[in-house]
Parts: sequence; structure tokens; C-alpha cells
Amino acid sequence: LPRRRFWERALDGPAAELLFAGRRADAVRALEQELATDTTVTTSGAVYLIGTGPGDPDLLTFRALRLMQQADVVIFDRLVGDGIVDLCRRDAERIFVGKQAGDHSYDQSEINQLLVTLARGGKRVARLKGGDPFIFGRGGEEIEELAAAGLEFQIVPGITAALGCAAYAGIPLTHREHAHSCVFITGHAPEQQAARDWQALVRSQQTIVVYMGAATLDYTAKRLIEAGLAPSTPLALIERGTLAEQRVAVGTLDQAADLAQRSAARPPLLAIIGSVVRLRDKLAWFGRERCAAGSEP
Amino acid sequence: LPRRRFWERALDGPAAELLFAGRRADAVRALEQELATDTTVTTSGAVYLIGTGPGDPDLLTFRALRLMQQADVVIFDRLVGDGIVDLCRRDAERIFVGKQAGDHSYDQSEINQLLVTLARGGKRVARLKGGDPFIFGRGGEEIEELAAAGLEFQIVPGITAALGCAAYAGIPLTHREHAHSCVFITGHAPEQQAARDWQALVRSQQTIVVYMGAATLDYTAKRLIEAGLAPSTPLALIERGTLAEQRVAVGTLDQAADLAQRSAARPPLLAIIGSVVRLRDKLAWFGRERCAAGSEP
Repeated sequence: LPRRRFWERALDGPAAELLFAGRRADAVRALEQELATDTTVTTSGAVYLIGTGPGDPDLLTFRALRLMQQADVVIFDRLVGDGIVDLCRRDAERIFVGKQAGDHSYDQSEINQLLVTLARGGKRVARLKGGDPFIFGRGGEEIEELAAAGLEFQIVPGITAALGCAAYAGIPLTHREHAHSCVFITGHAPEQQAARDWQALVRSQQTIVVYMGAATLDYTAKRLIEAGLAPSTPLALIERGTLAEQRVAVGTLDQAADLAQRSAARPPLLAIIGSVVRLRDKLAWFGRERCAAGSEP
Repeated sequence: LPRRRFWERALDGPAAELLFAGRRADAVRALEQELATDTTVTTSGAVYLIGTGPGDPDLLTFRALRLMQQADVVIFDRLVGDGIVDLCRRDAERIFVGKQAGDHSYDQSEINQLLVTLARGGKRVARLKGGDPFIFGRGGEEIEELAAAGLEFQIVPGITAALGCAAYAGIPLTHREHAHSCVFITGHAPEQQAARDWQALVRSQQTIVVYMGAATLDYTAKRLIEAGLAPSTPLALIERGTLAEQRVAVGTLDQAADLAQRSAARPPLLAIIGSVVRLRDKLAWFGRERCAAGSEP
């Protein structure tokens, strides 16, 4: 019941305007008023580990936004899409934890500790993660200490970059004629990839998705070719996936160096490797539609 | 601009109540009035291929709901969560395309053709898919004919079952100390799995996620053990993931038959295999929280 009441207030009233960039200030003020008089809101601390999706705020879930609106403190990093932090309560404290050159960056253990300290102090904390918190998000690590301390937390899944970029680029990750499985890896620095079992990745009818891999894409491609993947295997490199500035470069595995060099490597950044990439010729739609409702730029 | 106007009307007005189960009829009526006077809505046909997430309507994205509210026709199957179809416009035509014993089921080519026919006839069609349309959703197949026919379409990613179930079960799919990659497979009938490269799946520090695999879980587990995965590898079987009725059974790979037998195999159903499953001991939260705001049952 309290939950339904919250929905009613948050979406039935002027606070709904929180979602319109142009009227954001008014909207947040209205929501603050709602929250100020909200007796259902607990005062005990909690951390909401929230996947905010690949970038487009339109891909936030209702659950994500609701919890963002309840947080006293918002903790975010550079992988959280522009405009998403602004959807939190205006009076929420904002803590940027990195990682950008020149900024003070928190290291992982500092972030973990920060969450514990804030929750123990009675704060409701929205820890925003780009994509999904449990796919290369280190979300598990961030809440382990919280959990050990017996503090309250919730985990909100998000559209991980693989799903968002695939949909907006028109590349199905699985397809009966092309791929019966899909594997997600990261493009770590080569020295960290020494132990990777490249042979195992190179399975027929498997799509390989590489997160954060522009800098090492050439290395990754070379290892995959050595392990037996055809140099002519299609490869798509997607930058700023799901956003208006989305760029999709398509080539083959042996052109990886070229593709990566031409990329600005702006997140969300993702490489998709496999014959499914060819389907984009038919299925690309984003940035092309003009008359479909709801998609005007 | 038309997009912002739509948001304003849809979320600023009484139609926002579409989201509250208890006041659904009023809400849909209000939205219909908005749409009736909406001059920005196109009259040309289009198909919106929409991932509706693992089940909890709270995990719909804003984009998904907006397009659902614009559709004249809604096409759905049994993998779409209860209550989600009801969030479409009340006057939208609803077409159930299967697949349940006793019902007339459409086969895949009939569904593909239906989408083409409706869009060509000027209808805006919401094709709802459980989870994400490009992860084992056959979404690619469904829009290939549309695309070939030059018809308008959009693809909306959704929270795939792996992400939803993992978050709500407290099992990170990747984790620095446990898994550096994650692979998604389906639990097909054994005769369809003959070609599967089991050796390649059994990589150290890789989480294996099996979709729709209760019936074949024992078979899958036996093949993985034969291929070298330790019989003591942790296994979680998640039924009705993200829903209030969520059940998580945890055991080891060699107990797969037992776990599957005790399951009612109700979707979303997912098996997670790998040492990350152990983290659930610490990180389970759903169904336990009581005082955190926004999570009251």
C-alpha cells in the first residue's frame, strides 16, 4: 500500500515532470514537497545499487527512477549517462567517485567504505552504475561489506550495454541461424588477459561481446584469429550506444585496428563479434526513423 | 519537441495512473482521451519490438511503456509477465500468439507475417517479448520480414532474465574473484544440443546462465561435468525471478536433477552455474527487506 501511494504521488502529480529536461527544476521542487510530507518513507539507512542502463534516460526502469527519487545521497561515476544524475532529488548530495583524469578518484575500497558509512549514518544512498550492476559493474564487491555489516540494500538490474547497443544498432545477439549462445567479456589490458582461454571463446554460432575494449580491440581480434576465428568474421564497434550521437562502425575482425583507431572510444562502448553483425544491414533502425511516434530526435 | 509533449501529457496528467493496478480503468480512459486529441501521433503503421523484462512490471523501461501506450494492437505470448499487457491502451486489440497447451498457437512464420500485415495496414503494433528481444527472443527473425518490406519498426531492449534474476537473487554474474566472463545458453532438448561444444563452456572463471532449462537441467549438468566442470560447482535455479513468488533453489551441479524435480518450472526460469552462486549467502535481499522505502510487498 505505501508503495502504491508513492507511485500515485510521484507520477500523478507535478513531480512527474522530473522526466522532462526542460522543466527539471520545477519538477524536482515539487517532488521534494511530496517527499517532505511523506510519512511512509523510512528514516533508516539503505543503499540502492541501481543499474541506470546504457545511456538513454528513456531506458531507465520505473524501479530505478523511484529509488533514485528517494535517495539522500547519490554516488556516481563517469559511466552513468548524462542527464541521469539530474533525475535524482535536487537536494540529494551528489558524490562523484571518478574516474576521470585530473579528478580525485575514489578507489574501490573507498567506495565500498563510503556506502557502509553513509548507510550506517541513516542515509538512503543511490549508488548509480552504468548498465547493469552485476555485469562488469563490480556491484557485488560494493555491497559485500554492506551486507556483512547487516545494512539494508536493494539491487536494481539495468539494461546492460550489450543489450542496449544491440537493440539500437539492429544486431540480435542470438539468432537461430547465426548464434545459439552469447558470451560477455571485457577488453582488459593485454597483461591481464594472459590467462584468457581464447580457444573456448571461438565457438561456432556464438556471439562475442567485448565491453570497454576499444584500446585493446586489435589485441583481442588478433588472439581470436590465432585461436581459429575467421579474419572475415564481422565486427561492429558501437560508441555512445543508445544515444543520439550513436556511431556504429562495421567491418571484419582483421580490420579491428582500423575501426578502433577511428573511434573516439566514448561510453557506452561495445564490440560485437560474430555473423549476427551482418543482420544490421537489414535491421538498423535507430537514427533513421522519422515518422514513428515517440522516436523523433 | 513532439516527444517532450508526449511525455508531458502521458506523465503529467491523470493518465499517469495507468501504472497503478487499482485505478487502471480510469487511467487508460484518460490516456485514450489524450491520444485521441494527439496530433503528433503518426497514422502510418509501425511495429515496436519491446522487451518487457523478466516479469516485475516495475522493471519496464519508460521507453517500453510509452510505446505500449501508443499501440493499436498488442501481440504477446506466455513469457510476458502478468499485468504487463494490461498496461497497454485499453482499446488496443490484444492478440495472444501462444504457446500454451490447448490454445491455438501461432508458429513463428505466422507471427512474422502477422506483424507485416498489421503494419502495412497502418496499425501501430506493440510486439511484447519477455526479457530482451535479442536474447533468445527470436526478435531478429520477427522483424526481418518487416524490414525487408520497408516497414517502420523500433526495438526496445529489456532486462533479460539473466540480469533480473541475478539482481533479485543476489548473484553477481561477474565478479573479480569469481567470474571474468559470462555466457548465456538455452536448455534445448538434448537432441538439439548434440552439436554443443561443452568443453568450451567449461572455462575457469566463467558464469554459465541457462535459459528455459528446467526440463533439461540434469542433462546439461551431466554434460558439463563430463566436460570437466567440478560436480561441486554451485548451481542456482531461479523460478518466477523478480516476482513476489520468486523461489531460488541452491545446490551443486551434481544435484541438478533434484533441484529441477522440485521446481515448478514457472517463467522466468533460469539456472546460474558457477562459483558466483556462493555470493548469494551474503547478498540475498529480495523478499527479506522490510523497512527500505519502495520495497514493501
